[in-house]
Formats: sequence, C-alpha cells, structure tokens
Amino acid sequence: MYFKHIYDKGLAQSSYLVGCQASGEAIVIDPRRDVEEYLKIAEQENLNITHITETHIHADFLSGSRELANITGAMLLLSDEGGIDWQYQFQHTGLKDGNKFKVGNLLFEVIHTPGHTPEHISFLLTDTASSDKPVMIFTGDFVFVGDVGRPDLLEEAAGIAGSRKTGAHQMFDSLKKFKSLPDYLQVLPGHGAGSACGKSLGAVPSSTVGYEKLVNWALNISDENGFIDTLLEGQPEAPKYFGMMKKLNKSGPQILGGIPRPGRLTLVQLKDAIEKGIKIIDTRNKLAFAGGHLPGSINIQDNGGFSTWSGWILNYEEPFILIADEKNIEDLTKSLIRIGLDNIYGYINDIDLWANQGHELQTVKQISCCEVKMKLDADYNSIQLVDVRAKSEYDEGRIEGSMNIHAGRLLDNLDLLDKNKDIILHCASGDRSSMGVSLLKSAGYENVYNLTGGFNAWQIEYPHCTDDVTMESVSEFL
Amino acid sequence: MYFKHIYDKGLAQSSYLVGCQASGEAIVIDPRRDVEEYLKIAEQENLNITHITETHIHADFLSGSRELANITGAMLLLSDEGGIDWQYQFQHTGLKDGNKFKVGNLLFEVIHTPGHTPEHISFLLTDTASSDKPVMIFTGDFVFVGDVGRPDLLEEAAGIAGSRKTGAHQMFDSLKKFKSLPDYLQVLPGHGAGSACGKSLGAVPSSTVGYEKLVNWALNISDENGFIDTLLEGQPEAPKYFGMMKKLNKSGPQILGGIPRPGRLTLVQLKDAIEKGIKIIDTRNKLAFAGGHLPGSINIQDNGGFSTWSGWILNYEEPFILIADEKNIEDLTKSLIRIGLDNIYGYINDIDLWANQGHELQTVKQISCCEVKMKLDADYNSIQLVDVRAKSEYDEGRIEGSMNIHAGRLLDNLDLLDKNKDIILHCASGDRSSMGVSLLKSAGYENVYNLTGGFNAWQIEYPHCTDDVTMESVSEFL
Amino acid sequence: MYFKHIYDKGLAQSSYLVGCQASGEAIVIDPRRDVEEYLKIAEQENLNITHITETHIHADFLSGSRELANITGAMLLLSDEGGIDWQYQFQHTGLKDGNKFKVGNLLFEVIHTPGHTPEHISFLLTDTASSDKPVMIFTGDFVFVGDVGRPDLLEEAAGIAGSRKTGAHQMFDSLKKFKSLPDYLQVLPGHGAGSACGKSLGAVPSSTVGYEKLVNWALNISDENGFIDTLLEGQPEAPKYFGMMKKLNKSGPQILGGIPRPGRLTLVQLKDAIEKGIKIIDTRNKLAFAGGHLPGSINIQDNGGFSTWSGWILNYEEPFILIADEKNIEDLTKSLIRIGLDNIYGYINDIDLWANQGHELQTVKQISCCEVKMKLDADYNSIQLVDVRAKSEYDEGRIEGSMNIHAGRLLDNLDLLDKNKDIILHCASGDRSSMGVSLLKSAGYENVYNLTGGFNAWQIEYPHCTDDVTMESVSEFL
Amino acid sequence: MYFKHIYDKGLAQSSYLVGCQASGEAIVIDPRRDVEEYLKIAEQENLNITHITETHIHADFLSGSRELANITGAMLLLSDEGGIDWQYQFQHTGLKDGNKFKVGNLLFEVIHTPGHTPEHISFLLTDTASSDKPVMIFTGDFVFVGDVGRPDLLEEAAGIAGSRKTGAHQMFDSLKKFKSLPDYLQVLPGHGAGSACGKSLGAVPSSTVGYEKLVNWALNISDENGFIDTLLEGQPEAPKYFGMMKKLNKSGPQILGGIPRPGRLTLVQLKDAIEKGIKIIDTRNKLAFAGGHLPGSINIQDNGGFSTWSGWILNYEEPFILIADEKNIEDLTKSLIRIGLDNIYGYINDIDLWANQGHELQTVKQISCCEVKMKLDADYNSIQLVDVRAKSEYDEGRIEGSMNIHAGRLLDNLDLLDKNKDIILHCASGDRSSMGVSLLKSAGYENVYNLTGGFNAWQIEYPHCTDDVTMESVSEFL
Repeated sequence: MYFKHIYDKGLAQSSYLVGCQASGEAIVIDPRRDVEEYLKIAEQENLNITHITETHIHADFLSGSRELANITGAMLLLSDEGGIDWQYQFQHTGLKDGNKFKVGNLLFEVIHTPGHTPEHISFLLTDTASSDKPVMIFTGDFVFVGDVGRPDLLEEAAGIAGSRKTGAHQMFDSLKKFKSLPDYLQVLPGHGAGSACGKSLGAVPSSTVGYEKLVNWALNISDENGFIDTLLEGQPEAPKYFGMMKKLNKSGPQILGGIPRPGRLTLVQLKDAIEKGIKIIDTRNKLAFAGGHLPGSINIQDNGGFSTWSGWILNYEEPFILIADEKNIEDLTKSLIRIGLDNIYGYINDIDLWANQGHELQTVKQISCCEVKMKLDADYNSIQLVDVRAKSEYDEGRIEGSMNIHAGRLLDNLDLLDKNKDIILHCASGDRSSMGVSLLKSAGYENVYNLTGGFNAWQIEYPHCTDDVTMESVSEFL
Repeated sequence: MYFKHIYDKGLAQSSYLVGCQASGEAIVIDPRRDVEEYLKIAEQENLNITHITETHIHADFLSGSRELANITGAMLLLSDEGGIDWQYQFQHTGLKDGNKFKVGNLLFEVIHTPGHTPEHISFLLTDTASSDKPVMIFTGDFVFVGDVGRPDLLEEAAGIAGSRKTGAHQMFDSLKKFKSLPDYLQVLPGHGAGSACGKSLGAVPSSTVGYEKLVNWALNISDENGFIDTLLEGQPEAPKYFGMMKKLNKSGPQILGGIPRPGRLTLVQLKDAIEKGIKIIDTRNKLAFAGGHLPGSINIQDNGGFSTWSGWILNYEEPFILIADEKNIEDLTKSLIRIGLDNIYGYINDIDLWANQGHELQTVKQISCCEVKMKLDADYNSIQLVDVRAKSEYDEGRIEGSMNIHAGRLLDNLDLLDKNKDIILHCASGDRSSMGVSLLKSAGYENVYNLTGGFNAWQIEYPHCTDDVTMESVSEFL
Repeated sequence: MYFKHIYDKGLAQSSYLVGCQASGEAIVIDPRRDVEEYLKIAEQENLNITHITETHIHADFLSGSRELANITGAMLLLSDEGGIDWQYQFQHTGLKDGNKFKVGNLLFEVIHTPGHTPEHISFLLTDTASSDKPVMIFTGDFVFVGDVGRPDLLEEAAGIAGSRKTGAHQMFDSLKKFKSLPDYLQVLPGHGAGSACGKSLGAVPSSTVGYEKLVNWALNISDENGFIDTLLEGQPEAPKYFGMMKKLNKSGPQILGGIPRPGRLTLVQLKDAIEKGIKIIDTRNKLAFAGGHLPGSINIQDNGGFSTWSGWILNYEEPFILIADEKNIEDLTKSLIRIGLDNIYGYINDIDLWANQGHELQTVKQISCCEVKMKLDADYNSIQLVDVRAKSEYDEGRIEGSMNIHAGRLLDNLDLLDKNKDIILHCASGDRSSMGVSLLKSAGYENVYNLTGGFNAWQIEYPHCTDDVTMESVSEFL
Repeated sequence: MYFKHIYDKGLAQSSYLVGCQASGEAIVIDPRRDVEEYLKIAEQENLNITHITETHIHADFLSGSRELANITGAMLLLSDEGGIDWQYQFQHTGLKDGNKFKVGNLLFEVIHTPGHTPEHISFLLTDTASSDKPVMIFTGDFVFVGDVGRPDLLEEAAGIAGSRKTGAHQMFDSLKKFKSLPDYLQVLPGHGAGSACGKSLGAVPSSTVGYEKLVNWALNISDENGFIDTLLEGQPEAPKYFGMMKKLNKSGPQILGGIPRPGRLTLVQLKDAIEKGIKIIDTRNKLAFAGGHLPGSINIQDNGGFSTWSGWILNYEEPFILIADEKNIEDLTKSLIRIGLDNIYGYINDIDLWANQGHELQTVKQISCCEVKMKLDADYNSIQLVDVRAKSEYDEGRIEGSMNIHAGRLLDNLDLLDKNKDIILHCASGDRSSMGVSLLKSAGYENVYNLTGGFNAWQIEYPHCTDDVTMESVSEFL
C-alpha cells in the first residue's frame, strides 16, 4: 500500500492519494482543482489513478474531482446520501452508507457521517493484503485532530436557514459511530490548522481514534444539548466565497484542462485597465505596499492566507489584475483557481516603471500607539478605532473603545464608519489591517491610518506612553 | 539613442530594437513571433514600442510584426515595393523607396534593395540629435557580413519559376546602391552564421560598408554575369518549410496572444496517441535516443538546429508530441511557434516510466568505420552508404561509393533506398544521421545503421583499418 | 503542537521536527546532514530549534546533529545506553532509559529499545497542553511499519562478530516493552520503504501500536527462538558504506558549515583529471549511458538510489567527478554529503563537447533474451550469465544457469568472472546491470553485455524464442 | 572569426571574447572577475581560451584576468607601457606599442594610447583569413561612443596629484593616432552608457572610426588647450572605491576559485550580528524599505546601480549582511565580487520573521513638495534641503536654497548637516535619496525626510502648491 498526504497550506486543506502497488491502481480523496500534483505522484510511483472520491460537497475550495476524472478517465465516486437537496448534479457513481469498493487490494467502506453537511461520508480503509482489519479512516470535515466540523457553514455561508441546529444533532449521532471504531485506527482529516472549517484545529496532520477519544472535546460531552451549545458557540466568520463554492461543487466545477497563464500587461494596457476600473490586487509585502502603491489597489499579500482573503474580497464575475513578481504568478494563479477565481485580467511585475513615468503612488498612513493615546486624550470623539480581527480574537482581548469589523466584511459595513473622523485600523500584527486600509481607501476614505504593530504592539507599548508626548516626539512615528 | 541586437541562435536570425530616450519611442525591426523579449527590453529601458517594420517577407521564420502590433498598438510599416505579387495582404502603412519616417529623433530612410526578394527594403538610420549623417544601415537579407542574400529561395522553396535569375540581376543593381554609401556606416544584417538565407555567413554580428567593400566577395565582382554565376552556384538546400513561411508572412500570421502551453500526457494518453498515429518528436540527446527510444519516434535534438529541422520534418496540419524535460518545454514551444508549428498535441518528460510498464524500446544500430570497410570488402552490393549532409559538404569530400540525400529530404527519396540492403547513414559527426535513422525506421526500414562518428571519424579511422579485422574484433563495435 | 515529517526518498530516511508554538521551541529527531530544510521550516513556523536528538548511531547516513547544533546552538541529547563500546565520542547531554525532558509543553520520555543497535532509544511524546496521555512514539530503527530493525548490520557492515544473535535477543525483549504501550499511540519510525535497515518496510509513513500488534510479523511470534530465526533470515545485503557511517557517527561527523559547491570542469581540466585517473560517475539516464559514455566512467543514475549506490561504489578517500546537468548538481551534492561523500573533484554538464573534440565514446553492448538462448544452445560454456540483483530476488526466481553477484559487490568478486567468456549481466529491468556493466568495463573487462530488459523481459520473451532465430534476425537486437 | 560582446549593465562594462574557429583558440579582452560566462561561451562555441588581455589597469572593477588564467592556463598579455609606476606587479607577458600577436588566424596589433591612464593600450584586429586589412579596434577606456576616457580619475580617485593635466595632454596625442585609422574600422570600447569612466557615454554599443570623427566632440577640437579645458570640465564624481580597484588590479586581484556562496543567517545569528555592529545592506525596493526596515540598515537597491553604490558605501575590510530574496543572492554576490567586495557575512531573506518576533522596524519619513514649501514659508531656517544628485545634475537645475552633497559622499560631509534642523533629502526620483536617508539615519540623524518624487516631482507639483495648504491637507502627504 502506498500512502501520500498532499497538503495545501493556503487553505489548510488535505487530500490523499492511496495506491495498491500490486495492481497499479490508486484513488485520490478530496482532490483540489490544480491536479498536476496528483498526476506527478502517480507517475513517479508507477500508479494509475483509477478512482476519485470526495467526503462531501466542499464549501472552502473548488473540487478537482471532475478535472482529474477528465484527464485520467478514473471512476468518480460521490455521496448519494443527504436527501434531495444534497445530490451532486453531474455524472458520478453514487455511494451510500455501507457500500464497499476496492482499489486493487485496498478495501474502502463508506460510512455516512452527516453533521458538517447532510451528505458527508467517511471512508474506512482495509489493506487486505496485510490484514482483514481496517488501518485508517478518512474523515473529511467530520472529525479533525482535536475538533469536529462546523455544522453552521450552510446557514452562515450558503444561507440555508435553520440548518446549523439540524447539523449539530446529526454530528452528535455521527460521533457515536466514531466512538465505536477501534482505538488503534489512524484518523486522516480533511483540514489542518488554519482552515475555517473547524473551530480549533490542531497543527498535527493525523491522529488516532483512541487519542481523539481522550482529548477531543467533542467526544467528551455526553449530553446532547450541552454538545450542541458548545459546538455552535464561537465559530469563526465564514468567508464570503463559501456560498459560491458550495453551489459550484454541487453543480460541477468547470473543467480547466490546464492551469491558465495570465498575460503580463504593458504600461499602456495597465493604464487602459485602470481607466476601465479593473480591480488591482497588490500581492507585495505589506511594507512595500505601505511605502507606495497604486491608488485604489488592494493589498492581499502573497502568503499563506492569499487564497482565503482573495475569496473574501474578490467576486466571481469581475476580472482583476495582480501585482506580483513574475516567478510567483503561477503559484498565485493556482491559489486562485483552487477557489474558482479564474478571471485574471493580467499582471504587472512591479510598480517602479509605472511610478517612473510620473504616475502618483500612495502610501499607507501609520500611527503609533502613543500617538493614538494622545489623540484619544485630546479628543476622544475625533477618531474611530476599528479592530479588523475575528470576533473570537476581539472577545479574548481588545483596545478599549475599539469596534470590531472583520477585515473581510469592512466594505459591507461602511455605514458604521464616519468619514469625518480619523479611522484607525488594527489587527494582530498588521497583515489584515494593511488589507483593510487598502479596502477603505479604495472605497474613498481618506483619513485612514494603520496602527503600527497592531494589537501585539499595543499591549507592549501602550503602558509606556507618557503624558510628555509632544507633537515633536510623535512626529517621529509618522 | 538606444540600440539592442536580439539574436535567435536557432534560426541565426537578428532583430533590432532601436529607441529614442528623449521621446520614449522605439521601433522593432524584423521581430520574431515570440515577442515577450521586445516588450521586456522596452519596459526596462522605459521605452514604448511605437513603430514596427520588416525588411522583407521572410521565408525562414514567421514574422512577429502583427503579434507585436496587436499588443502595443504600434504603427506597422511594411514594404509596398516589389509589384503586385509581393504586397502584404493585411493592414499596414506602406513604405516605398525614398520614404522617410521618424521615431523620436531617429530618422529612418527607406532604400529599395531587391534581389533576395522583389519587395526587399533597407533602412538608413540617422540619429538627428547627434549628427545629420547616418550612423547605420539595417540590411535584412540584402547584405550580410561577408555575403549577400540568396535570390534562389523563391524558386526553390516557394516554387516561383525563373525568379532566381531575375533576383540575381536585381541584387547586382542593389549592390551598386550599397557601394555608394559612406565607408564608416555600420551594417546590421538580418542573419548571422548558420542561417539558410545566405551561402557563407560570418559569425561576426555586424560590419561596416567600408569593410564589406574590402572583403565581401559580392562587392568585388564587377562583371554582372560573373556575379550572377557565382551567386547562384552552390547555394544550400532550402528547408521545406520556407514555402509555407513565405505564404503565411504575406497573408498575415495568426495572432497568438501569448505563448501556448502544451499539456503533459499521462501514460494512458500517450498510449492512446500512439494508437492514433500521432507523430512523436524525441528531443533528447542523440546518445539517449540511440540507447533507447519509442518505436516510430523521430529524433530532433534540442539544440541550435531544433527550429530548422522541425521545419524540415513536421508539416503544418499534423499534431505532434514532444519528448523533453519539463524545464525545456517552454523554450521548445517558442522555437516551434517561431516557424508557425503551433500544433503541439502534448509532451512527456521521459520514457523510463513507459519502458518500466513493459513497453518495448528500440535502439539505434551502430556500425564502425572498419566494419563498414569489411562489409564493403566482403560484398560491396550488400550495403548502401547514404551521406545525409548538405550537397556542398558532400561535394567537398565524401566516402567513396556513398550517395547524397539531404537529411531533410530522406522521406522524399525512399525510392532510392533498397530495403533489402543494409542502409548505413552518416553525416559529419552524428546529429543529422541520428535523425535520419529515426526517419527511415519510422518509414518501416529495419536494416538501418548509424555510422559511429560520421565522416569526421571516417577520415581518422578508415586508414587504420587492417585486413585482420575478424568477426570477433568487429563485434566490439556493436 | 507543530509536527512535520521530513522524508528523504533516496535513503528512505525519516526525520521529524516537532515544536511547541506556545514557547516557540522545537526539537529535531534524527536530522540528516544537509540541515537547511530544518532551518527553513523552523523559520516559517516561527520556531527556534532548541533541542536535537537521535534514536541511535546511524549506519545508513551521516547524522546532521552536530551540523545543526553548530548553527542553532541547540542542546544535543544523545543516548548513553548500550555500554562502553557504544558511547558517542563527542560532547552531548546523555540520555538513559526513563529520562524525561521538555521542549516547551512537549514532554519526551526516553525508552531504551536495543536490538537494532545496543544504544538504541525511542521517544514517547506527550503534548501536555492537550492531555497527560502520550500521543506518539518515535521508534527510529526499532519498530517500522510492518517490520522491525535489523540486528545484523553491526556484524555484516561494521564487522562486529556475533552481534547479530545478541541483537536479536535484545530486539525480542524490546518488543515486549512495545506491546505494553496503548493501542491508540501513533508510531513514527526512522525509515520507510526502500531502506536497507529493515527487511520488508511498508510504504505507509506511520502506524499505530494497535495496528502493528495486529499485522507486524515480529509482534506475532511469541517463541523467542522462532522469532530470532525469522528475524535473521533473508536480510538484504548491507551496503558497504555502512561500516564507515557507523564509525563517523560515533566519533562525530565533520561540520560542513554549508553545502559545498563543486566547480564545473573545463575540457582541459577534464582531460587532466582523466589522465590522473580520477573516477568519473556518470549520473545520466541508463539509455544515454548506453548510447555513449566516457571510457572508464561508472553509471550511477540520478534517481532514488543515487545515495545508496554511491555509498556502495565510491570510497571515502578518493575524489571523483560527476557528469550531470548543472541544475541537478546541488541535489546530487546533498545526496552525497548525506552519506559523507564530500570529496567531489568537479563536474561536467554533458559529454557532447568532449565527443565533438574527437574523443572516443563507448557504448553498452546489448543482447536480447533470444540471442542469449541461441548462444546457450550453441555453446553453453562460452558465456557467463550474472544476476546482479539482491540475493532475495535471486532466490525468488532466476534464469537457469545464472550466478548471483550483488551489483555492489561485483568488483570484490572479479575472480569469479572469466575474461575469456562473454559476460552477460542482468538485474530486474536494467538500472543495476547498467551500473554493473560500467563497473566491469572500468575493471578492464571487454566482453560485457547488458541483457536488454533484464529478468522482467526474460520472463516474457524467453518462451517465445523460436529455433528459427538466425544470425540475421538476431542482429536486429544488436 | 567568432565575436561576442559581454556586457555588465551594473558597471556598464564591456568585455569581448574573440575566437578563431579554425584553430579553436580564443582571446578574452578585459574580463570581469566572475568568469563563468566566458568559460560557458567558449565551451558552447567549441573554443579554448588561450589568451587573455587588458586594455589598462582598471579603476572601476576588479579584473578577472588572473582568475581566468588560473582556470584556463591561458597566456596573460598585459601592458608594459606607462613607465615605472604603471607596471603590473604579477606575472604576465608584457606588451609594448607595435607588438603583434596571433590567436589562430586573428592578428592583434598593440597601439599605445595613453590619456585615460599612462599604460593604456588598444588592439587593432585583423582577421587574416578574410583580409589583410584590420576589421576592428578595441579601445578600452580610450575612445568611447561619442566620448573619450577621463584623464582625471587617477588624481581624483587614486590621489595622484597633477595627473589629470598630463593625462589630458596624452589623450590629445593619442587621438591623433586614432584619426589616422581608416573610416570603416569598427570601434569596440570598454564601457557603455552609465559608466563613471566617461562623461557622456552613448547607449549604442559600438561605432566606427569614421562616425566618431564626425560626431565625437573630442575628435573635433583641434586646439590642444581648448580640448584639455573641455575634457577636464564637468567630469562626474569618481566613486570612492576606484582608488582601491586601481591598487588591487595593479598588484593582482586575489584568485577566488569560484563564486563564494554566503550563508543564510538564522534570526539568532542576525541578532548576534546586529549586536556586534555588522553593517546591514537592505537590497529591497525603496518602497519596501520606506514601509519598514531594520534600524541602522542601509538601502542599496538591487538594480543596475548596485555594484557602484556598494563601492561608494562599503569598505573593503568590514563584513556586511545582505537582505535579499534567496533567488537574488547569487547575482548580488557576483555584482559585489566584481568590485572586490568579497566580505559577505551572510544574508537574510526578508524581515517579516524578524518583525513578527516583536523587533522594531523603522520607516522613512516622507514629505511632499507642498509641505516643504509651507515649511519654507513658515520658517526658512528650520529645514535643510539637501540635493544628493551628481554635481552636473545640480548645476543643470535645482531647488532654490538646496545644497548639493553627492549621495556617496554624505557620510564624509556630516559637518555640513545640522542635527537641529529637519533635513530633507532628494535626488531625481527617489532611489539615491532613499539610500541617503538610510545613511544619515545610520549615522544617528533622526529628523531626516525623503522628498517624495524628488526633483522630478518638484518641477511638476511646486507651481501648483497654493497658500491654502493647511495642516490638515498637508497631513495627507505624511
């Protein structure tokens, strides 16, 4: 038996390629949309991808099942559980609780495990060449390491009223099934730390049934109502693109036939695009963005959060331009198509040439903790402190007097922001607030400041701000 | 004034980007079809490509003028000389002898210089900011370093009967104009060493009018008939694709909008393609090809001659598959689209996986000089010695008893090859004969041998072959 | 808790980086010698490597513990078990059975688990922030997935007489300890499939105590003598370099301070090196090697087996030259320093330039199955069939009349090979026999053939060889 | 004859590789210190580098002649002209005016052409296979395209008093020799646009004797005194490192044996280095530097000017740290060793990790044109306007009231800068002033501002600044 864990750090998403060397067959579970990686591994290991499956209709990324089936001709095995509203709407071989299928010597048994979603299934794998006992279970977004899947996404992101309560009940029942599995069984979940699909995902990629029974909070509450209350409490904000993902994954994502390659724009084309109002996503480091950026451009840094924040900020109809080093374009494109953002208008490498032709650059106004203190002391009402972190972080500790608007929801809450005040944004250390500042500026706000160092700096520096802060000393921070 | 020589070694083709820093304008002369290089240089130098021109309708590569004009919006300036049959058939601004145009401070004067082709023009450049005297002349395929353009291509490649004689007359007249130019003028031609557009091109990229007057044979024959005889004598074979290039460049090459990216084939797809009879081009080193290759595949090595040999071997309707390292695919694709071969079916990285699945590989049978001698001594009629070099090389020196068929014309001359004999191919050192062997094998010939080391080895080894060569000692070479 | 499995496919070797995000500390277990990977992961995850440990004195690779400690200043924790002969001879903090140490919130407990080696220890890890129950055990070369460590390496490779029996006894006792661990515990071993440290390693990277109890043969033999017999039976040949690794890892590998960068040799330098008799390792594909190679060069292909085969073939005093693509040099260098082969004289990119200057290339003589049959039928004694696979493969099935000499031991067994006969080498599919042919040729053997397709081809083709095979039809295979 | 122009844009430096295909020999003229490029070209063209020469003892880069000779064993031919003080102090074959030597069929004739330096020679090349007339002249720093070499460098950079006058006289005489050459001769100089070795170098890589006679100012002044006055007038500042280059090139640059590879520093090592006071060179874009940088770090951007500015700022004894993307380290290292700056302590990839660990970043204070106007209007004496451009730029146009200190000489002129005033730096568009601000901050100045957009912006914006600029509107620029 060959086993490979493929992890996308950006979406904290796990897929698996499992193969039988004896027969040369392999299955991919929960493939992402840029499927080259699976093809490459299969070739290297001398395996053919003959089966493809999913644990459920994903909300957080666009499935690569159809893409991969199109290239390999593999059989596409998908859940037919969950009732009429949760049926995949494209051709596949249906799977129901108790179904078994083989990939060479590898036996997969389907277990219906609703809760995160109604149609969710898990796969119990037995390597029949070694033993008649199962060796691992692929749990998708059912059981994570130290957590379980969110039953509220459908309601929050897909707008299906009341589904969170139903899901929580189902999750409680599904966990009973999980508890009946043998302790030694390895548990391979669909997400790792950083995903928005669970509340408190650990950073360890796999676990065992026995260890989860010991430490997973969800397996240690025997009272159903207590379980449901805990489960539904404090779930993080669902990214805005989740609703669209759900819809597309159900109806069948468009087949790409390869990774698209965006074109590099000439300065003339860039100018033309700006005049047309095409959105510009500046993926450079926040420091470079702060030092100078194109008016109206939005800063989504090329780091682990790029996919998710792009899903929050961009919409699926509008084209957009990337500012990024040529060498990063391919990876950025992959990150975007993973969540279905295929509509790249073009890219430019850097903005120096633009600036050298005399075009204006804007900077991000910075403000230090002590200067904020001084302003507050002088006129409490002249400024608005906006904390763009997640609600859970805000609840754990905040700057007194700050209001909380999640960075991904700023543009939906402009009515809360007073153009006549100085608006001061912060997050934990500055990534999200850099994006937030760029969003507000793109919406026409001018008096927007980034609190340098964010809440982390505030906790360290604020206690040391003296009353002696004068205009002069403050100016050092500008 | 900014000046940049852009050289494609594969086609020995020169294009030029010349710019005026004061106005920020630039012109590209004779652009190739993969135009990214020009865009990149222009951006780096803070120039806009505002003008594009050509010296003539090219036969040896597909022009990038339309591609570049489409991206930049530059003015397209093309020859309207040459008569009714030599008019570009797509939109452009026409140029006639004596016309002048400016690119910023740079003044270009058009000189009609027919000979190579009827519509051929040259450009006299004056940097008016420095002087009112011209600084250089762009001669395209009119005057090369040490040579002049071939007037026979139209007849040989494009099938226009009688045109070689006419062209030679025109060339003689055009050279008179050249002689009247000042000695100090720099001469920038359209080709360097290795191109099939001239007879004996030097490897120095540029020259001067005065130096050419001293050393260029064509400027040193004052008798017109003598000139014409010398010019038409001993011109190399015109690659087969030249006719198509001419046609496409006249009617207007298709606009690509970017470099296409071929897909990697899975083994299943490869098998399927082989069954469909899709042609396979193996770009690996000849040694690797000799060591093992897919049955029916053709060896066109990924070296300087790749574009030209592909033009000889492939046709414009058929799709084909590349065998090449992933990292080389982009450059190979560029080399192919430069001559209009856009029809890439896909590629595979190597053939090990294929072989590991039990598929047969074939090897190239090698034969040494001394073994050939022995065979000849034993039964002169049992073998056929085929020299696949150019006629000029063959004429300079050959193996006695060998026949000459240019490697690019082998498949057109199968009637000359006897399937009942051992056919032994050679070139100078083994590149062309490796391709030749693969071509004959793809045409069903089985007893095809490569003479190891080619004619170079023959000259060294043959004199040392003794009569004592026994079956045993010969077998060492097998 | 952060967990990362770092796998070197070439040596099938696993190392682990485990960190505590709360304290920012991390430990590396069994680091390899090119340590950049660990530093990079630690930086990305915002962790400092504060602890380094090993499960035992490795025989199959050079440890990177000192290298990493030198760069990071981390504490070096090494086994003080195993008696006087098994003490690390450089500075470290000693570990004994029952010792505990913490890396932030992570608690490591030392268990002495001799068998593979006398000083071998395992680490039981508890994530105290989550639970007071252990979550995983790092077993090094004690328990693998489906197998246990070899107790015979010391005797075979390091030449310590009688140690295999002692080790087998100790292994039996250590496994009793393992059986007492809870079923749910994850098992993280030091090797995966392909390593020479176990007999039948699975290709799944991790397991659990409970699953191993069910399927691992070693945990299912309760009779000690029966266990020992099975354990010592049929262990693969120990690579020759293992003895040296053991010695160096005990005394302390030399600190590199970075990956060395070999220089590219000019043709003049190459010629000079050849005259000096410097060994040449040709890392190209076996097909390219077969098609043409430098006289005396040895073919160790740049694939998964490169480290191990280099360890078999090269010795630690001699310098050597690599033939490899420039882009692969860095990875090859890493592969070599992982087993202490630091003595790279230089490299060349390819051999075409060499050949173009008129230097002789040699080819690998190929022989087909049917031709071998014919030769055997004609004169059984004229040829010697040598199977260079491992003894276990030979025992499972062989060509009648073939003798078995492991590819790595060919040069030690030249007395078994008759220079007057045709020596025909084969392995399974041709990789090892390509190396074998090159070794014999470097030792002055001339009549050496590679059986095309190896034993795999033999099984398919041999039954179909007819008596009608004539000299002519056979020659097709040459 | 094979001819290749090798151009280093950073130093605007030209070297040439010229070869004779018939004999396989090649010469390199004025090689730079990273010599891989020459070796690669020679191998590709099947040439051996058998001769190496220089036009003179260079001041602007470290010569690669010894490095290349050490690798290739080529003959080193150097000027023995210029008198006792100008003799190369290491082994070489001496060249004097009138000497001739051959590289295959290529004949080189030495012409002593002092002026730029006393020992300067030029090479007249005749391709004897084509003609007995010379084809080109390699003029080094004697005649450039449109200019001639500076005779003042020795005095300014190397501190040799009075040498500028002597040099100018010699130049006048040498130019007489140049005028006697035939018009058609190609002229290949040692520098292109951007070098500090000439006053007004053109951006065209080559010229001819005839064209230079027409347009080069230096060939059109017949009065010696007039010539000398013009020549010595308005020469740009000589970079500080020139003196050292001269000295090292005369005594013989150290042989490297390969490009050194600096190590990546861990955060712990970085901290340690900062505490030791190791200089930090931040090569990121000026915008990123402005947005946030390590205290005390100096911004020398990784663009065309990197070599030269590093020569201005760094000294030859001190180690230093680079901040740069991993992928750029090799090129940066090459740029540095080209001028002998081998002393790289290590590098770090970016500063995010550093900042994330709570370390302070500093920003560059920006000030807009209109705010400067307001400040000037309010209190003329509170600010100091420093123009860090070259004197020639300053002389052509400046901000009224600004003082001129060349960016490379700021630290030598701290006595001119008043710590009690706001110091506002500008250059043309912001590159040099970003470096300047970082230099002053590293020297302890706190009230240092960068004038956004520099003098270019000033000319556009200043006229539009109204008196209505209020504190509020100004703050927008901060």
